[in-house]
Amino acid sequence: MRVIETIQEMRTFVSAARKQGKSIALVPTMGALHEGHLALMRCAKAQCDIVITSIFVNPTQFGPQEDLACYPRDLAGDSEKASGVGVDAIFHPTVAEMYPNRYASYVYVEEITDKLCGLSRPGHFRGVTTVVSKLFNIVQPDKAFFGQKDAQQVLVIDQMVRDLNMNVQLEIVPIVREDDGLAMSSRNRYLSTEERSAALVLSQSLSLAERLVHEGERDIAKIRAAVVSVITEQPLANLEYVEIYSYPELESASTLSKKALLALAVRFGTTRLIDNIILEAS
Amino acid sequence: MRVIETIQEMRTFVSAARKQGKSIALVPTMGALHEGHLALMRCAKAQCDIVITSIFVNPTQFGPQEDLACYPRDLAGDSEKASGVGVDAIFHPTVAEMYPNRYASYVYVEEITDKLCGLSRPGHFRGVTTVVSKLFNIVQPDKAFFGQKDAQQVLVIDQMVRDLNMNVQLEIVPIVREDDGLAMSSRNRYLSTEERSAALVLSQSLSLAERLVHEGERDIAKIRAAVVSVITEQPLANLEYVEIYSYPELESASTLSKKALLALAVRFGTTRLIDNIILEAS
Repeated sequence: MRVIETIQEMRTFVSAARKQGKSIALVPTMGALHEGHLALMRCAKAQCDIVITSIFVNPTQFGPQEDLACYPRDLAGDSEKASGVGVDAIFHPTVAEMYPNRYASYVYVEEITDKLCGLSRPGHFRGVTTVVSKLFNIVQPDKAFFGQKDAQQVLVIDQMVRDLNMNVQLEIVPIVREDDGLAMSSRNRYLSTEERSAALVLSQSLSLAERLVHEGERDIAKIRAAVVSVITEQPLANLEYVEIYSYPELESASTLSKKALLALAVRFGTTRLIDNIILEAS
Repeated sequence: MRVIETIQEMRTFVSAARKQGKSIALVPTMGALHEGHLALMRCAKAQCDIVITSIFVNPTQFGPQEDLACYPRDLAGDSEKASGVGVDAIFHPTVAEMYPNRYASYVYVEEITDKLCGLSRPGHFRGVTTVVSKLFNIVQPDKAFFGQKDAQQVLVIDQMVRDLNMNVQLEIVPIVREDDGLAMSSRNRYLSTEERSAALVLSQSLSLAERLVHEGERDIAKIRAAVVSVITEQPLANLEYVEIYSYPELESASTLSKKALLALAVRFGTTRLIDNIILEAS
């Protein structure tokens, strides 16, 4: 497995693979790889000849008060994990390589970015769509793999790809959870033992919502209130948002019909966690 | 020569050419083709196997008070002209094909878009960079050809291509002028006989600036004042801006050193014309 640090070298690597007629998968990450990331890479390897994963802690998707400086970085550990699931190359550019002096161009998606994480993290999705556009142009993958854990991100990137006519097929991989239900996240390592235990309210509240829907509940306000109640009962949990929107349009509704995204963000101390589930009226 | 109206058909056309190992040029236009456009197409044909020209009056680059509705459209005449210079295909999509319902994604460049035409036409360059990004993704050209007439547009697109790592080589073609000096423009046809004659002050004022520099003038305020004076002496000319910026950085300076862009926009009745010249301290 190669670790490539420059755009030029990445282009050369991809170009050589293309000339051999090989299909190319891209798995964009910020590193600190966990089983969720590895699931993306295994899917990618099953579908394409060459798997490239980018490991780049992208500064433009962090707000000024966020955890850019302390975001976990572990290239050695990440390389071992990526290599173990058959990744062919890691793209690991510097910030200066991706955003040189006088950098000034951005890609953004309106409307579906003005709610959920877009509301609490202004500029976040502009950073995501910009860096993903750059990665797509550098790697020119046939397929790109993203995790359903970042449900809104998936919808935003899908909209960008369709609107801007990008030549890439998106593959969305289900959330990977710990045995006790906590969704895998690079930020879980920030949690104290008490917070780690308290954080189980996220998946528990989602399961409750799913059960209510299964039992016939269609009133979105009631489902939301039940979720809010579970989370606010946990003293260490600081609720940022719980929202239920039609899926994939992300529009408000009072009654569940067809699919809806139940998404939430909760802080435990300084650690912000997100989780989600697609509710489906059968 | 083919006229192609859908993105899917355009992709099929390009894909077939690529499989034959052919190089592809794109010449983006809004139609109403004149000798300036044809110069771009001739250059493209000299450098690439296949020349595709897009003819699309892009609504997102027009302001609400601008001439979108009456912008000249003449596909039959344009087809004849394009065919005459060896264009292989015209891409002529509908607005709904390019901007379907729920369209929400944009590409923009900061800083160099906040002056000159960017100042008088808010949102204009966002529309340009967005549609050009889409065209690049649809056609995936090896080279794209733009005219120096739109000097700021050229710099904005160049910045976008570099920043977003787009895989296309830009080719910039010099301004084509009428025999009497008026820069070719699809909007020249809006001019009355008197306005057409008055519009000669644009190229005349640029020539004066060039002569002053040739004679040793390096004081940018003085050069600018001389240009302003020529234009304001013409009663039919309504000056929008005359600016001189370092080139290609577009930064303010008081003394001409190396290259500078002298750019101007002037209205004659309801018709807005632009022109420019690169001044060079030898």
